[in-house]
Parts: sequence; structure tokens; C-alpha cells
Amino acid sequence: MISVVILGAGNVAHHLYKAFSSSEKVTIKQWYNRSLSTIESFKNEVDITDDINNLVQADIYLIAVSDDAIGELSSQLPFENRFVVHTSGSVSAYDLDKKNRRGVFYPLQTFSKSATVDFSQVPICLETLMRKDYSQLKEVATAISSITKRVNSDQRAALHLAAVFVNNFTNQLYRVAHEITESQGAEFDLLKPLILETANKVQEHSPYKAQTGPAKRNDKKTIKRHLKLLDNDHHKELYKLLTSSIKNTHGR
Amino acid sequence: MISVVILGAGNVAHHLYKAFSSSEKVTIKQWYNRSLSTIESFKNEVDITDDINNLVQADIYLIAVSDDAIGELSSQLPFENRFVVHTSGSVSAYDLDKKNRRGVFYPLQTFSKSATVDFSQVPICLETLMRKDYSQLKEVATAISSITKRVNSDQRAALHLAAVFVNNFTNQLYRVAHEITESQGAEFDLLKPLILETANKVQEHSPYKAQTGPAKRNDKKTIKRHLKLLDNDHHKELYKLLTSSIKNTHGR
Repeated sequence: MISVVILGAGNVAHHLYKAFSSSEKVTIKQWYNRSLSTIESFKNEVDITDDINNLVQADIYLIAVSDDAIGELSSQLPFENRFVVHTSGSVSAYDLDKKNRRGVFYPLQTFSKSATVDFSQVPICLETLMRKDYSQLKEVATAISSITKRVNSDQRAALHLAAVFVNNFTNQLYRVAHEITESQGAEFDLLKPLILETANKVQEHSPYKAQTGPAKRNDKKTIKRHLKLLDNDHHKELYKLLTSSIKNTHGR
Repeated sequence: MISVVILGAGNVAHHLYKAFSSSEKVTIKQWYNRSLSTIESFKNEVDITDDINNLVQADIYLIAVSDDAIGELSSQLPFENRFVVHTSGSVSAYDLDKKNRRGVFYPLQTFSKSATVDFSQVPICLETLMRKDYSQLKEVATAISSITKRVNSDQRAALHLAAVFVNNFTNQLYRVAHEITESQGAEFDLLKPLILETANKVQEHSPYKAQTGPAKRNDKKTIKRHLKLLDNDHHKELYKLLTSSIKNTHGR
């Protein structure tokens, strides 16, 4: 049984707490947050604390706080040579204070307060600065997910950046579609099956193969009509840039 | 039992043929295509023809050919005052020859040769120029889909344009993510659960509410680091434009 301490109380921390709680291979020794109120409702399930000098012994300390706070929190830890990892996609393992053994435990998914997450389908990207720590980190990851992967810092940075494209930027395209349909009194809901199918398609096919539409066909008539329809300059700019991006990709 | 004739043999025509074939409320009287070879394999199931003067009588003629060919094909039809619809998202109902009663039967989904489509979940946008034709068109639509909607030409044009954003443009963002991960030897596959979750999230929440990430938080440090990581100018331009689009939406 591997023991962990969770530090932080944001979305990732909450989802990790829930996932580890249901695992029989990991025990949560303690949950730390600088403000106790956020985690107070869990006090009957787990040892909670807001005093960093009060941290108990554990195999792994999981720091799930905002990117900017990781370095400082890690340097406040009142012990040395223990195994400390953070959960960020974009922070280096070297940003953790070097008095402890360091690593990264990055779950590549979007977490929100309300939505429940099936953690078994969340890829967890792992990195340790010391080779001997890897197997233990992997054991913790496989306790909650069936997809774990050793990923170095450059690869993790690339994944985090790519995640912004497929998550935040894609969601913004949904938002623009929402604005376009609303401006004509059409229902955004009618696009939802298409949104799902587009995401489903690239589970099996490469995005290159999955592409269709006027830009790929270089259908100038439709492109021109679309640009005429767009009265928002910002939407127009997005349309032009993404159309030329598709043309570049498909050699038009 | 409503009778239809399908004209054309592209992806939409094939998927419509399959959907109507399995419906007990619609009978396919005939399948026309200017080249017989594409539909020859169906000759034991349905009357096929490549002679437009040989078209049989039916309640509805469904023209599922490329946008540019719709007008001409409709004017070649050797009859008058019958009910003729096209299946395009971006062509006006008025582009059909006015010698017949006109309408639109637009299935809002992406169709490819290989992928099977659950037509019951495909929204079908309906329009008729004559009010009395609507109920029959709706009957044909509900025979294969549980989502049908009366949509005027402006609304349909907006939906078709918005579909380009949520389908073609989103897929291109997946492609860029593929390029970014590959350039660092990271696995695009690790992004697939996130791609699905992003699409799933807006089934329940508005894209506005679903948004997260550095652009929404105006996290300048991460944005700067991402821009530094992008060595492809085109990717950089997309990153900048979509980041500023998110900032606009969320008042940053």
C-alpha cells in the first residue's frame, strides 16, 4: 500500500482525492491546504491540516496547487530527501526545491468542480529526476488510471501546449459557433451531434485524414459566401487564418 | 408510406439510402445517378437508373449532389409541380428550378464513406417554400431521425457556417496539436481523452461556461512560455488570435 499526502485544494486536488479514495492500492495519509475551510467537509474521512509543519510521513507528496505557487510551497516543506511531485503540465520538475527527490504526476485532462471524471481514462504523464523513484510513481498512477506514460519535460511542455489547442481553443471555436447561430436565431444545440462526431472521428483516424469541408476542397465559392456572412471582424479573421491553415496542411 | 427518389451518389446520398432502407415509413422508389457504376452494387435492392428521363413517380425527390450541380440537375428534371428538395447546408431553396415545389432537407452532420452514422441522432433542418409541403417533409425526416427542426434559409446558412467552425476548424486544431506533439516525440494519442471531454462538456454546459485555461485566466507567464515553445509561425499566429479571441469573450 503506497501512502500519499495531497497538498492543495483546487479542482485537480479534489479529483485526485476522489480517485485515490476509491483505490485499494493507495492510502491518503493527509490532505493539506493553507486554508482549512475548503477541505473541512472531508475531516471525517481523512486527516486534514493547514499547518505545513504538521505534515505526516508518506511515500509520496503530491503538490496540486497553481503553477506559480509550486516552487514556494515545495521549499516550505519541513523535511528532506522525501519524494515530492507536482501535477502541473507546464512547470519543470526542477522548479521543485532540490532538498527532496522530485518528479511530476501530470493528469492530462480538463477538470472542473462539477463534472465527474472517470479517472481510469485520464492519461497520467510521469517524470522523475531519479530513476529509482519511477516505479513507485508509476504504481500510484496505475492505481487510478489505465493510461500512464513516461514523458520528459520537453514532451510534457508540448503536450500541455497541444492541450490548449484541443481544449481551450477548440472550446472557443464552439463559442464562436454559438455567437454565429444566435445572431441568426438558429439553435446552437443542433451542432452538438456534429461536435461529438468530430471528436469521435479522431479517436480512430488522424486529423489529417478526418478533414473535410470547403477549405480542404479549396471551394472558393463557399469560402467567399461564408466570409460575406460573417459580420464580426474577429470571426472573419479566425475564418481566414484557419482556412489558410487547412489549405497549407492539405497542399492547396 | 411515403415514396422517395434519391438523386446523386455521394456520401450523403449513400447514408440517406441506408437510413431510408431501414425505415418502415419510407420506401425508396428509385436511385438515380448520372454514372451507374457508383450505385450498381445496389441494383438487386432498388431500381437504379442513369437516365433522368426515366425517373419514376414519387412523393419526394431528394437531390443529394454537390452544391454546384444542384441547380442544373433540378432544371433537367422532366416533370413539373412535384416536390423536390436538396440536402445542402449552403444552397438556397430558390436555386432549385421553380417548375417544381421546392424545399430543403439538410442533415447537419459530417459524413464519410467509411464511418457508419446513427441517423437517429442527426439533426435534420427542414425548409419548404410552400407551407402545405412541410408536413410531408417532416414525416420523411422523423422516419429516420429523432431531431428535426424547421429552419429558414438565413438560419441554415448560419448553421452551415458554424458547422465549419466546430468541425473543419476544430479538426484543424487537432491537426496542429498533432504537429506540436510529434515535433517533440510526444504521443498525440494522449490528447484523445481530452478531445472527447471537451466535446462532451458543451453537450451540457455553454462553451462560455466550459472555458478554462491560460487565456481565460490571462496567465501572461504561461502564454509567453507557450509562444516561445512554438517554432512554427503559423501555429504562433493561431495561438495569438485564439488567445485574443478568448480574452475578448471573457472580458480580459
